[in-house]
Amino acid sequence: MTRLADARVVIVGLGLMGGSLSGALRGRCARVTGVARREETIESALSRGLIDDGTTDLVSVVDGAKIVVLATPVRTIMRQIEEIGPLLSPGCLLMDIGSTKAQIAKQMEHLPASVEPLGGHPMCGREVAGIAAAEATLYRGCTFILTPLARTSPDALALGESLVQAVGAHPLVLKPNQQDRLAATISHLPYLLACALVNTADVLTSSDPAAWEIIAGGFRDTTRIAGSDVTMMLDILLTNREEVLEALNTYRAHVRRLAQLIASGEEKDLRQALTTIRKLRREMYP
Amino acid sequence: MTRLADARVVIVGLGLMGGSLSGALRGRCARVTGVARREETIESALSRGLIDDGTTDLVSVVDGAKIVVLATPVRTIMRQIEEIGPLLSPGCLLMDIGSTKAQIAKQMEHLPASVEPLGGHPMCGREVAGIAAAEATLYRGCTFILTPLARTSPDALALGESLVQAVGAHPLVLKPNQQDRLAATISHLPYLLACALVNTADVLTSSDPAAWEIIAGGFRDTTRIAGSDVTMMLDILLTNREEVLEALNTYRAHVRRLAQLIASGEEKDLRQALTTIRKLRREMYP
Repeated sequence: MTRLADARVVIVGLGLMGGSLSGALRGRCARVTGVARREETIESALSRGLIDDGTTDLVSVVDGAKIVVLATPVRTIMRQIEEIGPLLSPGCLLMDIGSTKAQIAKQMEHLPASVEPLGGHPMCGREVAGIAAAEATLYRGCTFILTPLARTSPDALALGESLVQAVGAHPLVLKPNQQDRLAATISHLPYLLACALVNTADVLTSSDPAAWEIIAGGFRDTTRIAGSDVTMMLDILLTNREEVLEALNTYRAHVRRLAQLIASGEEKDLRQALTTIRKLRREMYP
Repeated sequence: MTRLADARVVIVGLGLMGGSLSGALRGRCARVTGVARREETIESALSRGLIDDGTTDLVSVVDGAKIVVLATPVRTIMRQIEEIGPLLSPGCLLMDIGSTKAQIAKQMEHLPASVEPLGGHPMCGREVAGIAAAEATLYRGCTFILTPLARTSPDALALGESLVQAVGAHPLVLKPNQQDRLAATISHLPYLLACALVNTADVLTSSDPAAWEIIAGGFRDTTRIAGSDVTMMLDILLTNREEVLEALNTYRAHVRRLAQLIASGEEKDLRQALTTIRKLRREMYP
């Protein structure tokens, strides 16, 4: 069984997530090789000490790697699985850290039988993109979801878990569909409503210069994720479309109900609804 | 003209906002008298050094006060304006710090001509309530909206501004309707959509124990204000109903549009919409 300490690890995609993962793994495995589209990104990752070596040529470095982690947007991950699958060495652990897992898992089913596939989704991140924002500490303390396939061996899963623990995160094993359903509500929906709120503020308040002086903490918090990387979010929404639409439908029904309670002025019912919600929120974050 | 340093100030309501205001004003005016419904609140405010003295008997302390600040929920403020208006000394500055201003301004029109009315709305606060959470530093650096009436004298407004500056905040003079329109979108709407998101998560994810392990930063930020004090929020929503409903309507239209773009899979249009939103968000918080 491969030990993390002996493994050469290839990280594909040196943005915020991949760059941070590289930096966190460096020194905890035999070697961290970074792959990026642009030479400048490799140079930046090298000068910041996040990788041992790097290249823009993906197919040249995967042969012989014990672990390959795809840290690109979801649909790029799906193309790369197809592209490098036949090139991977027997027993190689092929992970990805895309935010949706069902479609990626489906794609991973087609990998050569000698490859060990393992989906991953670290529940961390920030609304800044790129290697300049990468920090080796990004994963510390976060929950890192792992979605093994039926074909994934216990040893491969254990190696994935040791990688997660090495970067300071806590592994949580879920089924791909289960993770996508939960992420739709907990992660993708908040992004969409933050987007709609930004639009609303633009339409209703941007003509009044005073708006910019009073933009309050609640608004800043609620809209923060609307600043997320668009390509990443677009891939997430389009590869988790059904779950996202179901979450949106349920959400819209609840917004409509609150609007009705306010419009009707049914004070008792409105108080009851808000009190229940406040109690639920407090149970979520005790 | 009254100077803040010589004024006896009465703060009515020793919750988070009133208690913090008391603590921030203490030592910057002649005396801070706190008014609360319960003796325990007075005792807590005294022991925490937030007031010079206190009472549960509102009508007994307003006579002779140079400044009275109502720091109770909006509809309580409106009752208290009616109750204490005839008891105030000539030239008394009667302020309030309720979150909606148009209905309070209407009520203030009926005050005796000798009283100086001034609406206020500090753009700070936290999702904790009560004197135990009060901090003299709460107002530092925040924008503090002031909404004078036509009858408010320049001297009275200047005294209100000096109070705002004394607690470390920046005064911003707006019309009551203007403040309510802006607050509906920037402050009250984020509360409602946080509430609907909590409801949605409860319905769609609470049956899966894994949900609680992965509740992510975006979700936490977006729902934070759903923990706000219900009586305060109920008063806000019901005294700013028309503006809140208009903001909700616009918001719902934008959510619907995003849902349609995702459902139709019009990738180019969806990317364009998300890119525009991201740019708007970055302009709001450069």
